[in-house]
Amino acid sequence: MAAPSFKRLVRFVPKSDASKVLLGEPESESVDVGEALWNGQEVTVNVFSGTSVLAAGSVTGQKEVIDRVLSPLDSSEVGTIRCIGLNYVQHAQEVKVALPEVPTLFMKPSTALADPWPAKTALPKLTQKDDCGDYESELAVIIGKTFKNVSEEDAMDYVLGYTAANDVSSRAAQFAQSQWCFSKSFDGSCPIGPVLASKSAIPDPSKLKLQGSKNGEVLQSCGLDDLIFSIPKLLSFISQGSTIPAGTVIITGTPAGVGVGKTPKVTLRDGDRFDVKITPHIGTLINVFENEV
Amino acid sequence: MAAPSFKRLVRFVPKSDASKVLLGEPESESVDVGEALWNGQEVTVNVFSGTSVLAAGSVTGQKEVIDRVLSPLDSSEVGTIRCIGLNYVQHAQEVKVALPEVPTLFMKPSTALADPWPAKTALPKLTQKDDCGDYESELAVIIGKTFKNVSEEDAMDYVLGYTAANDVSSRAAQFAQSQWCFSKSFDGSCPIGPVLASKSAIPDPSKLKLQGSKNGEVLQSCGLDDLIFSIPKLLSFISQGSTIPAGTVIITGTPAGVGVGKTPKVTLRDGDRFDVKITPHIGTLINVFENEV
Repeated sequence: MAAPSFKRLVRFVPKSDASKVLLGEPESESVDVGEALWNGQEVTVNVFSGTSVLAAGSVTGQKEVIDRVLSPLDSSEVGTIRCIGLNYVQHAQEVKVALPEVPTLFMKPSTALADPWPAKTALPKLTQKDDCGDYESELAVIIGKTFKNVSEEDAMDYVLGYTAANDVSSRAAQFAQSQWCFSKSFDGSCPIGPVLASKSAIPDPSKLKLQGSKNGEVLQSCGLDDLIFSIPKLLSFISQGSTIPAGTVIITGTPAGVGVGKTPKVTLRDGDRFDVKITPHIGTLINVFENEV
Repeated sequence: MAAPSFKRLVRFVPKSDASKVLLGEPESESVDVGEALWNGQEVTVNVFSGTSVLAAGSVTGQKEVIDRVLSPLDSSEVGTIRCIGLNYVQHAQEVKVALPEVPTLFMKPSTALADPWPAKTALPKLTQKDDCGDYESELAVIIGKTFKNVSEEDAMDYVLGYTAANDVSSRAAQFAQSQWCFSKSFDGSCPIGPVLASKSAIPDPSKLKLQGSKNGEVLQSCGLDDLIFSIPKLLSFISQGSTIPAGTVIITGTPAGVGVGKTPKVTLRDGDRFDVKITPHIGTLINVFENEV
């Protein structure tokens, strides 16, 4: 893989042709793509050749306006999604557990991947029936080159960039038997996007700020400097004996403020909008939830 | 998918051409393919057209002798492997935990998939360093048709067949922080095979017998009638809100007799052979372990 030649990449369907999926860099360096689209603003993109962020080509000279923004990677590209539990100091305090000594890893299948709004995000029946849908705002790391048994020192060589993610959870299923994979792996439980910011745009991810809000009310707000295990530590840990393929999405844990920790508890219901905003560069992942019939 | 037209399928490299991967049915209906190959016996196969068990074609008339037997599915076909924890009554008693009320689900990435012997099966450093490699003999269910939100009554419509699996585990990592995905997802932690027996060959999987043995000593021996959650119950449970793609491998839990439960404990080390034998029809999955450098 050549060094990525972009700072911020979006995958999208253009207004000019609903049958196309394109890749490119927003013309404005500062636009929050998710918020702009929600507000009905036009977002113009300098189109790249290729349709995969893993093999993004060069600028074509073509300009297109976004009709629908998609997750930066297609579900066929991501393999098994790696997820880190309990990775923020303040969140550990909120749920009253001791700081873990090593990262806790769980997984979601690629079928969990979902696009940002305007696609609707499904809440399955198991999440509806106990009013137990919950959000978890997270930073996602996107792997650009396959690795295994990597040291902390070398780990960042394999990172392509970063985006925003929501680790949507069915708390009743999670707490009934302390199982994370089942309660967090349903279709639509891993929306990511909209902007993939390259490693060169974000040389130090610990300086990012993350905010989660439901229907406009801020419920999570934290710096990435609150991480218990840094990104190089996570990559080194999960690669012990394990091949981590290019395209792997690693979601890195959520800060304090999840719905189940609030009094009264906050849940995700049909029609709710949830925003995961990461600044600078990444912007806002907006999802609108819809009960699955 | 047309109804599978086979009773027992193997994927293999033939003696006639080391560059080919073929699919077919052993000529002998009763041969235990794994044991026969270990004993140096010739296994002749009636070759089918196609190379994927998900789209196995018809008998070609060609006969070939197996050189190396492979896992029945290629890692590119299996997606995220679904794994069930604690699903045998006697095993729950052995590890002194109450019977679960619902199945416990965890996952392995497709990179965990491994071939039977003569391929060597890696024990990574995290498994070597605390002498904590362990075996878990399991029945694997192979999904032939994609499904979601399926009832117990309809679940078996989506099953292609069954094979043997070893849920190789790194116990130190598992018990350090009660995490199953990390401790059971390294490369080589999910060997399956060698024979995929069709649903028509095994109309009632609860009548199967499963045996695990290390270097010839029988350590696990149990009937599939000891399952806490039947196969239709498992399929219905894991499909709640979740698409389960064709090709998915579901490993269904291990019976009593795992190494960590023995006094003194039994572990997998460099050079050990472990056999998972399921009778009738499936036969013996043999793996020889090798320390990864």
